[in-house]
Amino acid sequence: MDFRNVEKAFSVYLSLNNGLDINNQSKKRYLSQMKGMFADEVVYNKMLQEGDRLIYEFYDFGMPENAKDLSFGTSICYPGKVGNEYFMTRGHFHTILDTSEVYYCIGGEGIMMMENPEGDVDYKELTPGCALYVPRRYAHRSICTSKNEPLITFYTFRADAGHDYGTIETKGFRKLVVENDNRATIVNNLKWKER
Amino acid sequence: MDFRNVEKAFSVYLSLNNGLDINNQSKKRYLSQMKGMFADEVVYNKMLQEGDRLIYEFYDFGMPENAKDLSFGTSICYPGKVGNEYFMTRGHFHTILDTSEVYYCIGGEGIMMMENPEGDVDYKELTPGCALYVPRRYAHRSICTSKNEPLITFYTFRADAGHDYGTIETKGFRKLVVENDNRATIVNNLKWKER
Repeated sequence: MDFRNVEKAFSVYLSLNNGLDINNQSKKRYLSQMKGMFADEVVYNKMLQEGDRLIYEFYDFGMPENAKDLSFGTSICYPGKVGNEYFMTRGHFHTILDTSEVYYCIGGEGIMMMENPEGDVDYKELTPGCALYVPRRYAHRSICTSKNEPLITFYTFRADAGHDYGTIETKGFRKLVVENDNRATIVNNLKWKER
Repeated sequence: MDFRNVEKAFSVYLSLNNGLDINNQSKKRYLSQMKGMFADEVVYNKMLQEGDRLIYEFYDFGMPENAKDLSFGTSICYPGKVGNEYFMTRGHFHTILDTSEVYYCIGGEGIMMMENPEGDVDYKELTPGCALYVPRRYAHRSICTSKNEPLITFYTFRADAGHDYGTIETKGFRKLVVENDNRATIVNNLKWKER
């Protein structure tokens, strides 16, 4: 992808209703791209046979990766579960670990799950109007806990922060968010690996 | 103001309806604090005698001023005019000139007026859902052009960027936004000073 010219101002239209930009392509993540990320692999495989559902989508407007600019966009995580585990984003550390991120929730309900390499875990609820500061050094994952509404957030991070998905893909997060008695509940990830 | 502890995640609630946070104090800018910033000083003084109206308010959550964190909040500019010139924020350069800012409009209508020290002028319309990238080195001012709705934006900038209000206070912007035939119109600022 070519980097955008940021010498001049530009604007995009990200709908406050559904988070989508009708003029730009989003990046889409389907169930098939999230193999090994949900706890219940049997249910995962069964769901996949029934169709490759869209789990989440987000935008990348091609900001040049330098410390002076900011990347921004919306992330839309759709409602659903794999077994009792809610649909979620893959989650990532920043490649420049020591950078933060700001999320502003504009729709839906959910949880931001966070953890740092030392194993400190934190999570915050997201509801419309909630502005969340994700501290430096914390991996973060958006989880949609509503039954019928997508979780929609507007995010901003330093344009050179970068995304390290590999660590989470290999190890997972220490905690999972599952539905229990009709409520979002935090439980230990039994498959979490110290490596 | 003490800086916030950013070792841990935190969230604030910034209403999508009016931009306000009922748990935190906003910073308020009244008409009396904007002396010399509107073109028509006769009307300005007359309005001030009738009462000190709130022009805009915004939030500062006390982020530590370093390049790794992000400051964020909402800005709410109320509808009104001084003569034919719309209510607006003071406008500022960043102290670290070479840093950018991102605005996400969540309500109202307006214009972001921008100019760099070389005299390049740029402006963009703001409507709900519009995400605007303000380039590095550009001073920026939010202007509410609706007759009855405040212009509400959610902003993020690098926490060390800083605010240089003085340059704009002394020189003004090169262009003004005024109502002409019931429409927002860009005109030259006849009082603009090259210094």
